[in-house]
Amino acid sequence: MDTFIGPIGRLINQFTKLPGVGKKTAQRYAYKIINMSPEEAKQFAECILDCKNKVRYCSVCGNFSEEETCEICKKRDHNTICVVKEPKDVIALEKLREYKGVYHVLHGVISPMDGIGPNDIRIKELLARVGGVGEVIIATNPDVEGDATAMYIAKLLKPLGVKVSRLAHGIPIGGEIEYTDEVTLSRAFIERKEI
Amino acid sequence: MDTFIGPIGRLINQFTKLPGVGKKTAQRYAYKIINMSPEEAKQFAECILDCKNKVRYCSVCGNFSEEETCEICKKRDHNTICVVKEPKDVIALEKLREYKGVYHVLHGVISPMDGIGPNDIRIKELLARVGGVGEVIIATNPDVEGDATAMYIAKLLKPLGVKVSRLAHGIPIGGEIEYTDEVTLSRAFIERKEI
Repeated sequence: MDTFIGPIGRLINQFTKLPGVGKKTAQRYAYKIINMSPEEAKQFAECILDCKNKVRYCSVCGNFSEEETCEICKKRDHNTICVVKEPKDVIALEKLREYKGVYHVLHGVISPMDGIGPNDIRIKELLARVGGVGEVIIATNPDVEGDATAMYIAKLLKPLGVKVSRLAHGIPIGGEIEYTDEVTLSRAFIERKEI
Repeated sequence: MDTFIGPIGRLINQFTKLPGVGKKTAQRYAYKIINMSPEEAKQFAECILDCKNKVRYCSVCGNFSEEETCEICKKRDHNTICVVKEPKDVIALEKLREYKGVYHVLHGVISPMDGIGPNDIRIKELLARVGGVGEVIIATNPDVEGDATAMYIAKLLKPLGVKVSRLAHGIPIGGEIEYTDEVTLSRAFIERKEI
């Protein structure tokens, strides 16, 4: 006979689809589901369907939204646009509670190695938004693709008279120079500021 | 505004109910669900409900089963009963493909500290099954509660003329004496065998 009976085996397979979940972890999750009350399990299943069915992308910024336009686009200052790679970057920045402008989610970065060109991410939509905007802050990751995307967008926006900036790179606060990797350290040197 | 919109926040909360899942991991799982196709998400939710609704306990051995009596109890030799704490122990033992008898799942072990006495686990059900059985193998964990439960069951069964045995404890195969913990090492000494 199989090690697991049908419904348990199938649920374990489903859990292994989640990122970083192997067979053993999936097994523990499945046991947890079996030990839940029927109401709890039902609620769990409903939340999955709910999340999939109700969440869509904001037609303006591309962030997660329950409605046509997201809460951030509805309420906040459209004079500054912060450009990010993915919706989760919006959440990381929102946690600061400092930024008062709106976002633009690219849903990817330019990566010729993976066959992703400028037309595959939401750059056209960004260009359509920047008329009359004071500043565009590019917050892509500080890696090859993120840098290339930032450069590409800056090149497109500058002729339009839009101020373009990028998040600062350097030694993290609380970090030690001794243990900072070489790339970061050389970047911190290049981008040094007069005090 | 909240960091997460309603349906995402609720799904993240659901995922944190799984063992060992924190906020960050739950967040990654939720993103995965959002990026699934609607069919995939539906299947995921259905598997959860299915697992909860179709899985019950075998009326004989207490293991997970889709029917009144599980596949193991239906097909295998009832002359040997292996007593385990939980259904997952059955799965661990079944993977060996060596044991040909049936199981008895206690659904817990005696643990006075947690207020669990002999009447709270399936010991009565075990006593009702042992008539005419050749051997009862106790495979509870080698910890205080597991040991106490094994001793208690052995004491009850021996007067009935049933052979009672327990899994061997000692240095794991491939382990090194130098790195074996003291309790295991002293147990290996006490239970040493003539060769």
